Amino acid sequence: MKLAMIGLGRMGGNMARRLMKHGHQVVAFDVGRASVDALAKDGAAPAYTLAEMVKQLPTPRIVWLMVPAGEITEKTVQDVGALLSAGDIVIDGGNSYFKDDVRRAKVLAQKGIRYVDVGTSGGVWGIERGYCLMIGGEKQAFEILTPILRTLAPGRGDVERTPGREKLGGTSEEGFLHCGPVGAGHFTKMIHNGIEYGLMQAYAEGLDILKGAKSENLPADQRYDFDLAEITEVWRRGSVVGSWLLDLTAMALVESPNLAEYSGFVQDSGEGRWTVQAAVEEGVPAEVLTSSLYTRFRSRQEHTFAERVLSAMRKKFGGHVERPTGG
Amino acid sequence: MKLAMIGLGRMGGNMARRLMKHGHQVVAFDVGRASVDALAKDGAAPAYTLAEMVKQLPTPRIVWLMVPAGEITEKTVQDVGALLSAGDIVIDGGNSYFKDDVRRAKVLAQKGIRYVDVGTSGGVWGIERGYCLMIGGEKQAFEILTPILRTLAPGRGDVERTPGREKLGGTSEEGFLHCGPVGAGHFTKMIHNGIEYGLMQAYAEGLDILKGAKSENLPADQRYDFDLAEITEVWRRGSVVGSWLLDLTAMALVESPNLAEYSGFVQDSGEGRWTVQAAVEEGVPAEVLTSSLYTRFRSRQEHTFAERVLSAMRKKFGGHVERPTGG
Amino acid sequence: MKLAMIGLGRMGGNMARRLMKHGHQVVAFDVGRASVDALAKDGAAPAYTLAEMVKQLPTPRIVWLMVPAGEITEKTVQDVGALLSAGDIVIDGGNSYFKDDVRRAKVLAQKGIRYVDVGTSGGVWGIERGYCLMIGGEKQAFEILTPILRTLAPGRGDVERTPGREKLGGTSEEGFLHCGPVGAGHFTKMIHNGIEYGLMQAYAEGLDILKGAKSENLPADQRYDFDLAEITEVWRRGSVVGSWLLDLTAMALVESPNLAEYSGFVQDSGEGRWTVQAAVEEGVPAEVLTSSLYTRFRSRQEHTFAERVLSAMRKKFGGHVERPTGG
Amino acid sequence: MKLAMIGLGRMGGNMARRLMKHGHQVVAFDVGRASVDALAKDGAAPAYTLAEMVKQLPTPRIVWLMVPAGEITEKTVQDVGALLSAGDIVIDGGNSYFKDDVRRAKVLAQKGIRYVDVGTSGGVWGIERGYCLMIGGEKQAFEILTPILRTLAPGRGDVERTPGREKLGGTSEEGFLHCGPVGAGHFTKMIHNGIEYGLMQAYAEGLDILKGAKSENLPADQRYDFDLAEITEVWRRGSVVGSWLLDLTAMALVESPNLAEYSGFVQDSGEGRWTVQAAVEEGVPAEVLTSSLYTRFRSRQEHTFAERVLSAMRKKFGGHVERPTGG
Repeated sequence: MKLAMIGLGRMGGNMARRLMKHGHQVVAFDVGRASVDALAKDGAAPAYTLAEMVKQLPTPRIVWLMVPAGEITEKTVQDVGALLSAGDIVIDGGNSYFKDDVRRAKVLAQKGIRYVDVGTSGGVWGIERGYCLMIGGEKQAFEILTPILRTLAPGRGDVERTPGREKLGGTSEEGFLHCGPVGAGHFTKMIHNGIEYGLMQAYAEGLDILKGAKSENLPADQRYDFDLAEITEVWRRGSVVGSWLLDLTAMALVESPNLAEYSGFVQDSGEGRWTVQAAVEEGVPAEVLTSSLYTRFRSRQEHTFAERVLSAMRKKFGGHVERPTGG
Repeated sequence: MKLAMIGLGRMGGNMARRLMKHGHQVVAFDVGRASVDALAKDGAAPAYTLAEMVKQLPTPRIVWLMVPAGEITEKTVQDVGALLSAGDIVIDGGNSYFKDDVRRAKVLAQKGIRYVDVGTSGGVWGIERGYCLMIGGEKQAFEILTPILRTLAPGRGDVERTPGREKLGGTSEEGFLHCGPVGAGHFTKMIHNGIEYGLMQAYAEGLDILKGAKSENLPADQRYDFDLAEITEVWRRGSVVGSWLLDLTAMALVESPNLAEYSGFVQDSGEGRWTVQAAVEEGVPAEVLTSSLYTRFRSRQEHTFAERVLSAMRKKFGGHVERPTGG
Repeated sequence: MKLAMIGLGRMGGNMARRLMKHGHQVVAFDVGRASVDALAKDGAAPAYTLAEMVKQLPTPRIVWLMVPAGEITEKTVQDVGALLSAGDIVIDGGNSYFKDDVRRAKVLAQKGIRYVDVGTSGGVWGIERGYCLMIGGEKQAFEILTPILRTLAPGRGDVERTPGREKLGGTSEEGFLHCGPVGAGHFTKMIHNGIEYGLMQAYAEGLDILKGAKSENLPADQRYDFDLAEITEVWRRGSVVGSWLLDLTAMALVESPNLAEYSGFVQDSGEGRWTVQAAVEEGVPAEVLTSSLYTRFRSRQEHTFAERVLSAMRKKFGGHVERPTGG
Repeated sequence: MKLAMIGLGRMGGNMARRLMKHGHQVVAFDVGRASVDALAKDGAAPAYTLAEMVKQLPTPRIVWLMVPAGEITEKTVQDVGALLSAGDIVIDGGNSYFKDDVRRAKVLAQKGIRYVDVGTSGGVWGIERGYCLMIGGEKQAFEILTPILRTLAPGRGDVERTPGREKLGGTSEEGFLHCGPVGAGHFTKMIHNGIEYGLMQAYAEGLDILKGAKSENLPADQRYDFDLAEITEVWRRGSVVGSWLLDLTAMALVESPNLAEYSGFVQDSGEGRWTVQAAVEEGVPAEVLTSSLYTRFRSRQEHTFAERVLSAMRKKFGGHVERPTGG
């Protein structure tokens, strides 16, 4: 199929390349001219303005946005919407908030333009492994896009089949799924990332306790100096905690047994926050997903104001003066 | 090699069978005569008393305990210890607390008996997949046991190799590892299970929020009726949250889309509790692992006393009378 | 001063009575005619329609809303706004979300009407103790309202003065405070309630552990059957944990040592949820306030879906079948 | 009465002074000669060795230990126990672990010596306010000590009586309580401190969110620059969150509006940790008390190893390089 890709960064560029490699045609646009040229060299049709881009597409036009969530996506959807016509399809493959999808889709629907939200997982590995795609929007639009989605997705690969799956149809085994109406794709991706935070934090805490086992505060015969690279490796085979994140952790620990070059300053993207908001809106207790987010908030500060409040109280009731020495 | 297996339940029986299948000889003992007979039928040498069992072993004798942690392990170690001699090896493959290992090893060391603790992961799948084994004790004892451990472990299988591993030796890639001195195996298994709780809880909360998205309290255009079996399936390919636990969850959801036959009454084994204790002893914050444990505590009560205290306070300051209707 | 009170429930009715007792004149309106009549009997000027109510007020008119947050407040603000003129003051004394204040104030400002948000704490005790008032809006409007606010507030009373306070002016010692521009009052009240949840949960968990100390799972000589009414009473004198909530808890426990008549089904109001949202928006880790909210979510369900997911996973990897018996 | 006080630091010295002021006689011992001399100047009988101390006491001898928990208490109990006789009473007024009480009491009981554990709250304010005392041990020993305990405790003071209390006897209204057999006093104090951590953390988080409300990341019309000293002051009157800890916080904020001189490095004493252990042993979910402890663990580190693990994973799956800039 022929489609336009807007945003040729790490994700968009790689996705365009994967598409072209499997026979699709890509019209490439980016605000950075160099990115367009680079992708043109790899076979894309270059477009240096949105208008140029739109002109090169057959109808119904398919435009895939892979730009940062928030203001840039907002503006790009508006600008692209102004150039498209009834029947065309705009895909937001970024990390947008599902409520923004719902709102944007309504605006575009006034012109008859269809809006599809695609949550995309796979990171830097996606160009080779394929991308796990969670899709929201009209079923009919999903069906039009299926050839593209199938190419981007990993396919069944050598992942063992879930027993009972053979009786079911559908595309989930191929790594892409129509999750529901507009917003459903990004909602699913949001929860995916919320879970991701929780999984990461579970491993991180466990490894921290293993590392702390050599503390001299512990009795000498209950003290251990564990080799974390070996332990994460052994867990990769036959254990209950095997996962792709564990594979990556084992990889990092082989290279850097103490992870000394990693700051421990941990960013969070919107999805973790929106997951907590969704939990609160639904009234679902989500201790683990929330704690995983808060750990990241905390990791980016030297001390919270809350901690200074604790110090102040301790001083006031007990005369305790905190000293900045190890715990 | 020839060894004795004490405890022929789901774990011990299967491990014995896996060993025999690969050429080892097993002397089988269990307090239940029927279990001994069953394993004898599969090729084991039966023993109906510990003394009988010990008599059939060459020296240094190797005795593997696969019995419930706590009092039964305690008593069995003592009884076996009384029958063994210097140089013999007792292996506790159950889920013992590492501090108990340290204590027991000291007692046995007085007679020159060696004590090895083996944390075993793999559950009901181990007989086929192999067991991930985390071992503590003297290095020399570990080396004597290596042929047995190698058989029980999964081996490299078709798990992709961690880059950089080719330069390193060791057994972790085969699924068994000498983690350190006595207790190190069970300590590692304890943390393994702590992480397992956290991973499980992360998936569980995420799925709960997905399920809650159809709540009628939400605005109609931000409401979704997700198919969790499909979503967990699509995540199995190319996503960041892929794992064996996810595979199992996808399996359960294909069979039972609403998990209606599962009570939601969730047991915890000792390891989750000991993980929290280790975190507290080391001064390591472990929010996620702890919350995962507390969820289980909570799941086994209709209402906590704490909740009744909250109701009572609300009544007292605000005149609120709680009604038992949905949230 | 003369003002109108809309909403004559537990809070609004009592506030009107406290105002009248101290010489203010109240025009009383409620959708329930009986409530108006009851307050008229206590000295208020009755109004059976908003128009009647507005007619009885001198300019600038002061209208205090004490109605349920959400749709009812929204509609009432609109209806009242339609009847008022430039210079008049609308006060929302309910538990509104501060973002709604900001929005409503902008709409009213188009007609020159001033909007003041008042967070009100004190519960059923306020009629006697006075209400703690947190106010947002223009400083000038706050000043106009000061005589009313001073009457509603507790005043200094016999609360010991904070050292250093004597040098500072202001009204906070009297129990009412201009916290900032529109929304600041409800923001402060929101955090107040967030903290309230946390305090309540801290006591509740502590008492739960005390109660659990008699469990037969504990060693006989480390088992205690505590009298919680006595313990909460002793903490009321000289301890670090003394508070009004503790006073109320002691009260409840004297009446009902096991709190058997309290369900433990715990509602949450909006403020707890908004507190979590504010924490997430600001990037402030708020573990305790969030857990306190989640406890309430959990308290209103027999089992969460998350727990069923845990049961399902345990079944799949370990063959564990959960039995619904005590933990 | 006449008793010996061992340990004349901030707590022990003040308690001795309070006792003497109310007519009791104190034999003062401390390892620091200067402390003994200082108290002798205030009217105590000095003792420079334990033997000297014991000689000056009438039988049954009463010896109150106010020394650091752990090894020092352990050794002092042993040394004092060696010098005492049947019927004498040893009181541990420090912050010991209740399981140590149980153990020590058994040893002393072999000589007929009675052991009483007293949890003591009140901090630096106790000398004036009195100390809240939670007592464990034989009822008879408690009765012998009552005159001393009554003096140390705050008494009823002007704290309003809990309704229904008039029908009940007992000492809890006076600020001291026999909580149960040996260990019950320290168990109660342990939970008291666990609750204290939770209360402190609740206020701290709430104030942190208030402080964060001026963040420039928030929309301009939803941004507030709150005066925390004023807000904590207004909450002291008529609000639901009034407490002694709030009084102290208001005090600290008047002196130091940004708490800039407080490090935010927060120590924890044993009680917080033991509270978590008790919760885990009993199977009681204690999210808030545990999070309050973990916050303190976290506050004493620049970055946890867990956070470095998160950074490493993010690098591996997404190519994310964390930059150490604000969140």
